[in-house]
Order: sequence, then C-alpha cells, then structure tokens
Amino acid sequence: MSADPLLPPARALRVGVAGLGTVGSAVVGLLSREPRRLGARAGARLEVTAVSARDRVRQRGVDLAPLAWEDDASALARRADVDVVVELIGGSDGPALTLARAALGAGKPLVTANKAMLAHHGAELAARAEAAGVPLRFEAAVAGGIPVVKGLAEGAAANAVHRVSGILNGTCNFILSAMEREGRDFAEVLAEAQRLGYAEADPSFDIDGIDAAHKIALLAALAFGTRPDFGRVETSGVRAVRLADIAQARALGYRVRLLGLAERAGAGLLQQVRPVLVAERHPLAGVDGALNAVVIEGEPVGRLFFEGAGAGAGPTASAVVADLVAIARGERMPVFGVPAAMLAEPVPSDPCARCGRHYLRLTVADRPGVLAEVAAALRDHGVSIESLIQPRATEDRPALLVMVTHAGAEGAVRAALGGIARLEAVLEPPLMMPILGDEE
Amino acid sequence: MSADPLLPPARALRVGVAGLGTVGSAVVGLLSREPRRLGARAGARLEVTAVSARDRVRQRGVDLAPLAWEDDASALARRADVDVVVELIGGSDGPALTLARAALGAGKPLVTANKAMLAHHGAELAARAEAAGVPLRFEAAVAGGIPVVKGLAEGAAANAVHRVSGILNGTCNFILSAMEREGRDFAEVLAEAQRLGYAEADPSFDIDGIDAAHKIALLAALAFGTRPDFGRVETSGVRAVRLADIAQARALGYRVRLLGLAERAGAGLLQQVRPVLVAERHPLAGVDGALNAVVIEGEPVGRLFFEGAGAGAGPTASAVVADLVAIARGERMPVFGVPAAMLAEPVPSDPCARCGRHYLRLTVADRPGVLAEVAAALRDHGVSIESLIQPRATEDRPALLVMVTHAGAEGAVRAALGGIARLEAVLEPPLMMPILGDEE
Repeated sequence: MSADPLLPPARALRVGVAGLGTVGSAVVGLLSREPRRLGARAGARLEVTAVSARDRVRQRGVDLAPLAWEDDASALARRADVDVVVELIGGSDGPALTLARAALGAGKPLVTANKAMLAHHGAELAARAEAAGVPLRFEAAVAGGIPVVKGLAEGAAANAVHRVSGILNGTCNFILSAMEREGRDFAEVLAEAQRLGYAEADPSFDIDGIDAAHKIALLAALAFGTRPDFGRVETSGVRAVRLADIAQARALGYRVRLLGLAERAGAGLLQQVRPVLVAERHPLAGVDGALNAVVIEGEPVGRLFFEGAGAGAGPTASAVVADLVAIARGERMPVFGVPAAMLAEPVPSDPCARCGRHYLRLTVADRPGVLAEVAAALRDHGVSIESLIQPRATEDRPALLVMVTHAGAEGAVRAALGGIARLEAVLEPPLMMPILGDEE
Repeated sequence: MSADPLLPPARALRVGVAGLGTVGSAVVGLLSREPRRLGARAGARLEVTAVSARDRVRQRGVDLAPLAWEDDASALARRADVDVVVELIGGSDGPALTLARAALGAGKPLVTANKAMLAHHGAELAARAEAAGVPLRFEAAVAGGIPVVKGLAEGAAANAVHRVSGILNGTCNFILSAMEREGRDFAEVLAEAQRLGYAEADPSFDIDGIDAAHKIALLAALAFGTRPDFGRVETSGVRAVRLADIAQARALGYRVRLLGLAERAGAGLLQQVRPVLVAERHPLAGVDGALNAVVIEGEPVGRLFFEGAGAGAGPTASAVVADLVAIARGERMPVFGVPAAMLAEPVPSDPCARCGRHYLRLTVADRPGVLAEVAAALRDHGVSIESLIQPRATEDRPALLVMVTHAGAEGAVRAALGGIARLEAVLEPPLMMPILGDEE
C-alpha cells in the first residue's frame, strides 16, 4: 500500500497479455476502466503495458494504441516493462506452453485460463513456478467466474476433502436444460446452441466431456494433492442422452446433468466425467442453462456449494483480474495447494467398485419375452431392480425399457449390460447413468 | 516451504487460542489431528502453544496438558511463544476486544470469529492491524464454513458489486424451514429448536435478526469498501411470520427466508435484515434447514452463489484454520479489502425509495366492508394490487387478507399500511415482506 492510502498506489504491477480474444479484450478493458478501485484493492496500479495476438488490426473495443505489441507471445516474458504474464492463447501445447515456460523461466508470475495446458503440463509448470519462486495462478481455468480454485486451495484448505464434483461445461448444461425445458431432442438443441454461439462448430470438445475432464483433473489436484493427470479421467459426454432419458429421470424425481467427479475411493482416486441422474433436491439439480457449479465435500466443513457463470468474457476476466490482485497483494502459495514435489501420483481406483443406484435404459424389440431375457441377465450378475418403467412404444418411438437398480457395485451393472447388449432383442447400446444425491 | 518438501516444514506458526467452547476445542483438535497435511498446505507447522478460557477443568475432548494456560486471555498476546492470536471468546466488547487490541498492539496477526466485535469496532481494529502491518482475518465471522469473506474480498476483488444478500442465520432458517415442512407454528418450532440446541434459551439475538445484522454489516464493508456500521442496518426478525404466511407464500410460488441484504441505491447504501418472499427458482429459496448461503451480484462476474454450513464447531473451525493457513502462507491484504483509511462512511439510502413487489398480510374482522376500506387506503397511496387471497376464516383462525402488490416504491406501501393499521377492522399490525427473485 502507498504511504497515503487516499492517493493511487505508487507501486505498479505491469501486465503483459497474450491472446486478445473476447476474454483477453475484457481483461484489458476491465483494467483500464477501473484503475482506482482495483488499485485500492490490489495495493498497486494494475497496468497493461504490452499485448500479443495473432491479428493486429482486428477491432476489439479496447484501445490498444498505447500498448506495446509483440507478434511473438513469448517475447512478452522477456520485456523489461512486463512484471506478470497473462496467458489467454489456449491450447495444451504450442505457443501457450512456450510462453508459460518462458515467463516462469524469466522469474515472472503467470496467470492463465488454460485448463488444457494445466491438465497436461500442470505438475511441470508448478515445479517451474516454485523453483523460480513466483506464483502461477489459474482461477479462470475452472468454472469461469466462480472462485472455486481459491475455494478449494484456500477457503477449504483446512479440510480433508473426500469428493469434489460439479457442472463444469456450460454448453452441455445448456443443451440438457433446453432438452428438458423444451422437450426437444439433442441434435435439434445442439444445432440451436451452435447458432446462438453457445457451442462451437466442432462441438466434440464440449459434448464429449473433454473440456470438463480438463477441469476435473485440476480440481482433483487441488482437492487431493495429486498431480493433475488428464489421462486418468474416465470421460464420456452427453451424446448418448435422449430426450426420453431426461423425461423418465424427471418422472422419477431426478435431473440429468453432465458431472465431473473426483473422489477418494479406498487408497485410490476416482476421476470421471459422465452424465448422472441428480436428485431434484440436490443443489446441482437446480443449476440451469449455461451456469457452472461445484460441490466440495470435506471434513470438517461438510458440503460447500458454489454456483455462477462458468464462461463468457466478463466472468472469465473477473477471475483473471482476481489472480492479478492476489499477485499484487503478494500472495504466495503452492500452485496446487501443496508443494509441487509433494504432489502424489494419482492411483486410479477401479470404477467398477463404485457403489450406488443406477439408471438403465435399453432400446428393445417390441415383442414378448424381451423383459424375461433382460431380467435373467441382470439376475445372473446379481443386479437387483428397484423400479421399472416401459413407456408405450409408438411408430416413431421404439420400445424403451427404463430401470433403476438397488444400490450395488457398478461393476456388476456393467457386466450385466455387457451381456444385455449382446441380446438379439436389444437394438442399441444400453445407457447407464449413476444416481446421485439420495444419500442424505 | 522447507528445503525438502517431503519433510515437515521447519518453520512453525505458534498459535494462541482464546475461548475453548465447541469452536475453540474443534480448532485445537483439528490442528493437532492433521499436522502433516496442514503443514504441507501452510508451508509451516501450525502449532497451538497456549490457550485461555474461563473454566480450566471442563472436559473438552482435546488434550490441553501440553499447552500453556492463561487465565487472562490478553496475556496470550504478550507471550513470546505465540505468533498469532485466535479470538473465539465472543461479545462485541469486554475481554474479546481487549485481547484483539492487545494482539494487534503487540504486532501479532489476529484471527477471529467475532462478528459482533467487528460489526461494532471493525474499522478501528482494521486501522490498528494495518498500522501494525499484520493481518486481521475473520472468515469464520460470516456464514461459518462458507469461504465468503475470501469470496468477496479476493475471489470477486475485480468486481463492482451492486448487491450482496444471504441467509446468514441458521437458527431462523431452521425455524422457517421446519414451519414450512411440518406445518407447525412459530412458537412450537422455536421450542423444539431450543430443545435440539439449534436455538439459545434467550433466542432474541437470532430471531430478532441481530446476528444476521452483524454479518451483513461485515459483508457490506467488504463489498462496498465502507466502514462496517451495525447501527445503520435496518433490522427485523422472524417473530411476525405466521404459518399462514408461509403457506400463502408457497401457494404463490415463493418461500419465506430471513435475508441480510446490502445494496447500492443511488449514492447510498441500503443495509437490511428482514423476512422476504424468495421466488422458488431463485437459489436462496432452496436453502433449507440450518444452512447458510450468500449471493454476490457484481459486474463483470454476474451472480455468484455460495452455500454451506453457517455454524457448528467443525465448519467454523474449518474457516478459522483456513485463516491460519493464509497467514502462514504470508498472505497480506487490507482487512476489509481496501485500506482502512479509505473505508467510506456508509450513506444510508432511504429504504422507502426501494422499488419492488410486496406481500401484505392483514388480520381483519370477518364482516362486510373491510375489503373496501383496505382497498381505499391502498388506492389513496397509489399502491396497486396484483393478486389477493382471502383464506376462509375458521373458529381458531381469524380472517386473513393476503395481497401481492404490483412493483412500486416501498414508501407508498409503508404509508398505506400506516393508515390500514389504524382501521378498526384491522385486528393486528399488518405484515409486509418484499418479494425477491422475479427480476430475471
């Protein structure tokens, strides 16, 4: 803080921003629009001095004229007038990774929103940051504007966390919410989401769960003190979820959500992204549209729930600038909450050992005897059925068989479904979704 | 961090704890149970060296034998083996305030859960802490285990906040939830809450809104950079809320919650604690039982929602220890987010200028003409009614008149109710509650 707190702080933190898409432009805009308020909070003037992007002439709604321009992002790390580097280029490797290494190598703090880069190279970058004695912060990389990295690594620092879970991809939640609300099918809603800009032209990164898997890998590292390891996240997306599943789930008192989930299971760590049935009274069931939300369950705090905008220029810029404020305030903590050298190798736990109730949906031939065959396969694997619904088949809707199992090991359900999928009367790969939120 | 991160940190942060009720005992227990994990996160061993409480012989479930004992809490501040003082005595003045001043005067960081002390003396203590160059942290003072002080002062640091609101008193929320769920009256549920230990023998501190008012004064200071000023919080509690109100609200699509609310209104600041009708799809409506929740609305982040346990030994200890971890990590920030000398005097805004829809409930004589008199009084003040319900009167239930107004200034409604209360046919003071959550 400056000597006279009523004057702007004498000290400046000079920021170099790489990547001027909507988020980068919003960061530059926010820092230039609010110098006094941010200066009071940070104890330093936060000033963008240099930027780098691919296209120098594009209109971005912010005045870049006073700022130095670098065609090569890594050059920001070498500039004497840059104290801290903000990386908003994206991509797990390439120029983003080169810049991150260059910034830390030059002993400069790094702020990044790049979940892919950290999910793949987080342990390496954390070690580099700690060796250089500079912070590496990534609040914007998980759940956009929701301060959940701080929530886990700082707010919940006293806790033994046993599970962290969340709705981490706004595109998928937008699609599932719209299917439920409007009774429209996946393909139709996806096409609309693409028209509205909620989904990319190539949507696979979102709807196949990759983006959520990057984020749950980071949350797992923060929660459990393990190396972020994207390769160990068992990932499936929302393509297999039908309107009929959403309607049946609703009738049973659940809502379908794509969840990222990391939990201690024995000595191991379960990391998954998958569609789940969430009980209506669980807070994750109420998260609609493009929102994100995260649940932290630990001892002694119990259950913490955070909800907010998971994407968009403004919320993401809010998170980036919060990291800059923390750096200006001199906050120092290990990148993933514990020193990089202490990050343990995650021991994957057997997902088949997971216990719980399950939702099953089969598409079957509309003829006698099918139910008996299915029931026999379930019985042979010790899977017991709590309830069964067979919605009436119509000409444009094949016969479905929807079941909810009693609590049991997921492995038995997977094995039974393996047999069921091979039955002649079963016309499509079965869909299985775990059921969450009934425990309490 | 120690040289070899796989060894326990060489550095120790020695903690003196004043107040050994359930929270103090939980803090001592947590620090002694988890030294390795907490040491890795804090970069220092967190060791309790000395304690103080009123009763030395009481059984607390933690081993106090190795710890130094002080009968006078303030003596903790003077001990050479205490680096940081944790104040869990409670009370706005008296020994808690004496200890807080002594600790900061001795240049020692202070962690406190004491909302009353900070709501009354926060600006003074913040100035003392900053003059001494030491942190004063109070995560546990607001919403128990929910890291909302961090959420506001750090996570949302980049934002211009326009409103912060929340369910800040678990006792009131327990009572309102139980009334709704079980259809029982206020007095009956309060008596049960007292039996269960959710409410004190003298419950006025909770149910008259004082406790929530302390907390909203602190949230307002963090959100708006103003001096915490408990005296400026317009406070009412839940005593006037009837089972009939909860049932009528439910029928209209709302739930009754006691909210703390601080919002910018023109150049002023509105600070209130009052019962409110919250639209069912608003996240605060889903907060049940003794939970707490806080909503932060700001630009550019939009709306952030936090939910968790607002009281109890474990969650409160989680917040206290998170503050100790932050101090061990060397985190430094102004106590209320901006330097104490910059904290502005809050300019109270006129609550009558607040605009919105309102719920009104009158207890009236069951005779012709009453409705006409009430309607005339409302018309005379320009209050227009959107809907009206008159539940059937029975022998043990007097005639009620429940109305929802169109959006308008609260002042007009207050003025109309002033007149209505004087009508001979109106048997009890009318109840008015604002309606929240329909805006979006």
